[in-house]
Amino acid sequence: MSPLRVPISISARHIHLTPEHVEALFGPGHELTPLQELSQPGQFACKERVTLVGPRGSIEGVRVLGPTRPETQVEISRTDELRLGIDAPIRASGALEDSIGLQLVGPSGRVALERGVIQAKRHIHMSPEDAERFGVQDKDWVMVRVGGERGIIFDDVQVRVSPMYVLDMHIDTDEANAADLKPGDTGLLIKGPATVQAEPDD
Amino acid sequence: MSPLRVPISISARHIHLTPEHVEALFGPGHELTPLQELSQPGQFACKERVTLVGPRGSIEGVRVLGPTRPETQVEISRTDELRLGIDAPIRASGALEDSIGLQLVGPSGRVALERGVIQAKRHIHMSPEDAERFGVQDKDWVMVRVGGERGIIFDDVQVRVSPMYVLDMHIDTDEANAADLKPGDTGLLIKGPATVQAEPDD
Repeated sequence: MSPLRVPISISARHIHLTPEHVEALFGPGHELTPLQELSQPGQFACKERVTLVGPRGSIEGVRVLGPTRPETQVEISRTDELRLGIDAPIRASGALEDSIGLQLVGPSGRVALERGVIQAKRHIHMSPEDAERFGVQDKDWVMVRVGGERGIIFDDVQVRVSPMYVLDMHIDTDEANAADLKPGDTGLLIKGPATVQAEPDD
Repeated sequence: MSPLRVPISISARHIHLTPEHVEALFGPGHELTPLQELSQPGQFACKERVTLVGPRGSIEGVRVLGPTRPETQVEISRTDELRLGIDAPIRASGALEDSIGLQLVGPSGRVALERGVIQAKRHIHMSPEDAERFGVQDKDWVMVRVGGERGIIFDDVQVRVSPMYVLDMHIDTDEANAADLKPGDTGLLIKGPATVQAEPDD
């Protein structure tokens, strides 16, 4: 892999739950069952799945990711939103102010979520060593070029640096499908927005 | 609108039919019923809809576009492909060699299509006057920057020039959803791929 390339993970719709919501959906005393480790250390896909119910439609079998979090967060694509009949904001993980709600249904109960539904803003996880190699810093904005026949340059990709992180760009299924990306594909990191001809915002 | 901006049309999945397939699906002697004019002169959405049936699933209510054509062509998104269980090539309209087939179901019959299913390659229609204004020629490749919070630069957009064309960029629903585009949004035309740092293909 070229030293400027970043591995890409395609995030399907998923949900992070509080311990209270795990019990409400799966029964008293229930704990999440890890199924598979994810690219970031300590994160895992669980056996548990929930149904999302919106005003227009519902989506079954949405994967729960662990470990539990202090606030429940649902990450869906624009395609999912159109199916559910909702319009969630584009947000970084954890930035849930003024996000919207949804009904969650599990095998043992329901949760009327008041907020926590977002479209995840694309981002790159990297270690301080990777950041130095790329010449970028935590919270920098970069561009990433991906794809073959349907090449796309993602124009607002935020870098997140932590000693806990493994190099990985996260995009959602709409972003992957638009560029015809497959699991295992990589992107080329391009610094700045300055390399592309810009026009003042209008 | 800035003189460098291009209106964007979001193409939902649709189908163009031969006169023979219109009769096979909707009954002997049937002719398409125009419902609404499209951006390109002479093209129209029809009242008729068909069902696409693939090995994994089916999609109902797929809009027929008129007028009829010499060969039937189905244009779907990557998201649709995953639902149907097929893998269609990315092609310009009409370039159907080695494209794949699908079952079509109408109210009066079925068609086992042997080829004609594609993911449409994004492109811009423009008149010779627009081409002169943008400084581009028929079949040139350009980039187009779109979107706000989910800004994307489409990296391989082909220009098609004809006195019959009205200025309009065509993308599919995955491409629109990836950039969070809405009907009425526009893109900024950027000439060449030369303005973005490139790396040799690998």
